[in-house]
This record gives sequence, structure tokens and C-alpha cells, in this order.
Amino acid sequence: MAPTLAANASQNGTDTFNYANTPSVKASDLKAASRKKRFQDVFPVIRDELVAYFDECKMPEDAKAWFKRNIDYNTPHGKLNRGISVVDTVEILKGSSLDDQEYFRAALLGWCVEFLQAYFLVADDMMDASITRRGQPCWYRNPGVGNIAINDAFMLEACIYYLLKKHFRSEPYYVELLELFHDTTYQTEMGQLVDLITAPEDHVDLDKFSLEKHRFIVLYKTAFYSFYLPVALAMHMVGIKSQSAYDHALSILLPLGEYFQIQDDYLDCFGSAAQIGKIGTDILDNKCSWNINIALKKATPEQRQILNDNYGRKDSECERRVKDVFNQIDIPRLYKEYEDEAYEKICTLIDGIQESADSAEPTLRRAAFKAFLDKIYKRSK
Amino acid sequence: MAPTLAANASQNGTDTFNYANTPSVKASDLKAASRKKRFQDVFPVIRDELVAYFDECKMPEDAKAWFKRNIDYNTPHGKLNRGISVVDTVEILKGSSLDDQEYFRAALLGWCVEFLQAYFLVADDMMDASITRRGQPCWYRNPGVGNIAINDAFMLEACIYYLLKKHFRSEPYYVELLELFHDTTYQTEMGQLVDLITAPEDHVDLDKFSLEKHRFIVLYKTAFYSFYLPVALAMHMVGIKSQSAYDHALSILLPLGEYFQIQDDYLDCFGSAAQIGKIGTDILDNKCSWNINIALKKATPEQRQILNDNYGRKDSECERRVKDVFNQIDIPRLYKEYEDEAYEKICTLIDGIQESADSAEPTLRRAAFKAFLDKIYKRSK
Repeated sequence: MAPTLAANASQNGTDTFNYANTPSVKASDLKAASRKKRFQDVFPVIRDELVAYFDECKMPEDAKAWFKRNIDYNTPHGKLNRGISVVDTVEILKGSSLDDQEYFRAALLGWCVEFLQAYFLVADDMMDASITRRGQPCWYRNPGVGNIAINDAFMLEACIYYLLKKHFRSEPYYVELLELFHDTTYQTEMGQLVDLITAPEDHVDLDKFSLEKHRFIVLYKTAFYSFYLPVALAMHMVGIKSQSAYDHALSILLPLGEYFQIQDDYLDCFGSAAQIGKIGTDILDNKCSWNINIALKKATPEQRQILNDNYGRKDSECERRVKDVFNQIDIPRLYKEYEDEAYEKICTLIDGIQESADSAEPTLRRAAFKAFLDKIYKRSK
Repeated sequence: MAPTLAANASQNGTDTFNYANTPSVKASDLKAASRKKRFQDVFPVIRDELVAYFDECKMPEDAKAWFKRNIDYNTPHGKLNRGISVVDTVEILKGSSLDDQEYFRAALLGWCVEFLQAYFLVADDMMDASITRRGQPCWYRNPGVGNIAINDAFMLEACIYYLLKKHFRSEPYYVELLELFHDTTYQTEMGQLVDLITAPEDHVDLDKFSLEKHRFIVLYKTAFYSFYLPVALAMHMVGIKSQSAYDHALSILLPLGEYFQIQDDYLDCFGSAAQIGKIGTDILDNKCSWNINIALKKATPEQRQILNDNYGRKDSECERRVKDVFNQIDIPRLYKEYEDEAYEKICTLIDGIQESADSAEPTLRRAAFKAFLDKIYKRSK
């Protein structure tokens, strides 16, 4: 499981939210492509602002060039789903399209999420000893970079606070933005820690796995920053203040993020390569994925022994034996049951939103959450 | 030069501010020792608060234990000069001793500086491939840690914002504290970047060196976080609001930090091992130190050639040739001139502080800056 959302999204160009690369181009694809284009067009403006600060500080030219390359290489080449979802959510909550200035500010918050993502990914790749990311060598593997990438990751994070200060300092919700990024960053790092010590690639110990740990990792490492953060940023921007609205959003977006990740884990093993756009390697890589955890829960002692002996080995025969157990346990059926239940639950949560048109302050909109759910439910079908 | 302040302070237990280990124990030493003890006694309280949050989040036990070990191993074992100087400055600016609650809050800000330092040092050690730190193996070199140390460094930084939110959220200067940490962190990372690409240990190119670059590195990598940050935190805590007071403090503390670092660079080569408590290795390590930069500025073409051929080689004969050139150029005399001038300049800046006793808000106090200067001026003499 681990950095799956991030890794899949970026390395193979096939992740939930973007349909633009599928063979049959539909109207919605074109709309998604143009939305992405508009979002991307904001990046150079932001990048130039960041670089301009280096000029103000009289940073030496070689260091300025290095920094520019760092942000250009690591920030804008992903699917940008998280960033774009900030803009989409602001539009839905506002209930009308954004003027140019509003769009820029919403997109800037979206780019801050992408900077946060870049910060995590540069570091994750070092910790996982990954080779490629988003179709190019991982940053740390570039000639002359190496461990300097650690400081480069730090700087990607620092960009967030520079941008927020520059553009949102006078807003009444400025401090909430800062705390939202702080809290989310910490949560993601907590999830990453649990993942790193539970499922190291070089030491298999299935006793460390459990559905509870899997859930903790998924929520902390992925759901907070990928699902709650973009929506909460949008909520602040449109002026939602009530704590209960944020609690309500969180109560929907954490299960949604969990569902997304469990689906991602499931497809890694049971989706076809054509469907998911890559060959899944979770079994070979000792990932603490939903499949292995549900299997461990259901396994007979004999099946458990087979899993112990074969999970996380870099050997396709071992992988086949694990898959055989997964099929004996009928994980596809268990997944179907999970998915139906999760979908039902999330729909109920979304329906629980009270859309009061005459409220003194903007309120949550069911459509904002349905937009997420529709992109995920039964994808790859 | 590079992480000298940090490295010297921590690895060898002999750095400016702490006289407790010198042979002749004076009354001021005992006072320093008891001040340090009181500051240290706050750490377990803070550590337990941080760990309690992991309980609240139902973090798995092994991850909680890992995190506790991370903060215990990396945060409290240094000289703690930066942290203690927050408390000292609060006392001086307030003009009276602190009650227990005030002390705790000032010390907590001091510990936030120490967390920031820990964050930098864990990462610096990885980037420099260092072996030991503060008399123990560098964190990343502990069995089973390795590159997980990157995420551990991230978490040390996250502790700062967790603590500030918990204890300072309702203060009118809360947002200023957050921005101060953000800005200082970014500046330090900028300094680290310039240092890393200017003076990599494995590639000597003296053409990249200059006194201007040295100055940039010293100010950004060391002076902001080691000198300005502790004082500015204290200023916020006692209620100083005027921007001009912060500008004035910065105008004193940057030269002070520069002087401190240049002295540190000088002593690395010209201080005796007994004086500085270690064998200097800046020449062997290709450090962008003040000595080499002033030498490059003054060198004849012949001397320059000797420096090019011998600087940054792991060879004591090469080191001796570099030292010969340094002595021909008479760096001790140049340093003496620099020091007299810097001391004079800093004294004038300090004297420029207007101490208006009847001001509506607390003001700067000359004594706060003199306390710093006195600890540095002609140390090792």
C-alpha cells in the first residue's frame, strides 16, 4: 500500500481522477483537460514569485538556478488532482464560476497542496530507494543531487508558507490555513512513520500487520492530505467558519479517502494491467495493503503459513502462491462487499449535509463530496 | 565552516556560551549550570505532551516508542545555548525574574528553537555523511534507522507547530511566532543550499568561493536561527510590537552572528586544540570558511596555486601547505583587525538602542545584546 496513491498517481499516469488519457475521449475528458491546463498555467506565475524572493535576498545565481530546477522538476508533473480539487470545491461551494483573481487565489492554495505533495514525494523516494517518479528519475537520483535532496524537500515545504504569507496574510482565516497545513503535515508524517516501521521492504514480519494498522496508515498517510486538506482549504476560502462544518467534512472525507486507498490496494492485485496502467507490485514489495490484511484475518493456519513464507519476496513464484491464497479466501467477493458497504455509508454521510440556502455564512454542498465519490466509485469498470 | 556552530557546539562540548566545563569554576559558571539544569527540567514535560498526542491519535505502540526515542535522542543533548538564550532574553527584557508559568512558556519557546536545531542537524548529518554528533552516533546511523531519519527530521519540525498551537494559540502574537519560525526555517535552508553546492566535500573548486558567498552562508545558515530567532521570540513574548524594534534587533544580531561564525572559523585553524576542544578539520573538509576566503582575496598567483592544489584534500601534508599560505598572508593579523572592527561596530549598534523606561510598550534593552557579545568577544583568550 504505502505511497500507492502518490506513486500510482505519478509514476504511471493512471489514477482515478484523470480520464484524459483513456482511448475514448468524452466531453467530460475535454473539460477535465482544459481545467488542468488552466490550473497548470498558474504555476509559472507562482514559481517566478518564489524565485524573485531569491533575487531579493541576493542569493547566488547557481543556488537560485538549483532552487528553480528543484521546484520545476518536483512540483508540476503529477496528475495535480489534489490541487485541482481545491479549485473545483471552491467553485461548487461558491455556487458560481470564479473571476480571474478568485481563480488565481484558489489555484494558489491548490498549488500549496502540490508543494506539500512534492515535499513528501522527494523524501519518500529516498526512503523507499525508488528509481523513477512521474516518468523521470527520482530527484535524488539526478547527477550531483543525492542527499542534497533532503534540503530540497525542506525548501519545497517552505514554499507553502512563503506563498500563504504573501497572498493570504490579511485574510481572517490566515491562521487557520497555517494550522491546517501544520496539522496535515504532521498527520501525514505520522502515517508515514507507521508505514515505514510496519512494512520495511527488506524485512517481512506479517505479525506486525493488522487491519487496524492498515486503517491508521491509510487515514494518516493519505486521507488527511489528499482528501480533507483540499476541501478544508476551499471551505476557508469561501468563508465557512463553523467548526461543525469542518468536522462534518472530515467525517465524510476520511471514509472516502479510506475507500479510495482500499480500492487502490485491491486493484494493485486484481485489476488488469490495462485497467490500472501498470503491473502491481504490492505483494513483492511487502506492502501493508488491504488485501494482505484481510487475508491474514481470514486465513486458516495453513494459508497463514503460505503467506508468511511467500509475502514480500522478490520472486514471481512466491507472488503466485500469495495470489492463490487471496483467491481461496475470495478477496474479490470481500472487496465487493466492502465497496458496497463503504459506498452506502458515504452516500448516507453526504445526504446528511443540510444545505441551507438562507444561512448567514456559506454552507457545505453535497455536490462537492459527490464530485469526489463519483470519480472513485467502481472506477476501472 | 558549514554546520560549524552546530557541530562544534554539540560534538565537542566546547562552544562559546558554556563555561561550565573549563578548569576554573567561577560563580558565573555555577549560575550557568543551574540555569541549564532548570531549562533541561522542562524538556520531559514537553516530551510527554508530544507523546500524549500520539496516544490521543491511537498511534500504534511501536511507532509511539520510535517517536519518543527520536525526540529524546536528537533534541536535549546539545549545549542548549539557543534555547536558554530565549529565557535569558525574556528575563532581561522584562526586567525581573519570571514566575513558574512565565518560565515554562519562555522555556517552551526555547525548546522550539532546539527542535528546529534538531531538525536541521539530523538532516545535515545525513547530507554531510557525518559519523557522530554530540558524542553519540548520528541518528541515521542507528541500527534500523537509516533513511527513516528523513521522516524523523520532518517530525521534529512538526513538533514546533504542535507546541506553539497548544500553548500560544490565544496570544495576540501567535501568528508572528508562526511566521518567525517559517521565515527562519526558510532562510536557514537557503543558507544550507548555498553551502552544499559551494563547498561539497568531494569536489574542490575554489573559484566558487568568495567572501560574499561566505557572508551569505553565515547569515542565512547560522545567524538568523541562532541569534535573531531566540531574541525575536523573547521580544514577542514580552509584548514588543513595533517593527522598528525587530529591525533594530536584526541589525545587531546579524553582525553578531557573523562575528561569532568568523571567530569560529578562525579558531578552527588558529585556536589550539586545548582552547577549542577539538582538532579543526575545515581545511581537510573543503569548508567555505572565512580563512580560505580572506586568503583567496589576498593571495598572489603563486599562493593561489598552492591553495588550489592543496585545499580540501584529506592529507595532512596538503593541510600544512595551506596553513603555510595562511600564515604568509598573516591571517591572524587580518582576523585581529576584523575582530576589533566588528566589536566596535556591534558596540555602536547596541549603544544606539534607546531605553525609554516610560514607553507604552516594553522596549529593547542593551543588556540583552551585551549578554551575547560578552560571551563571544575574545573567547579562548
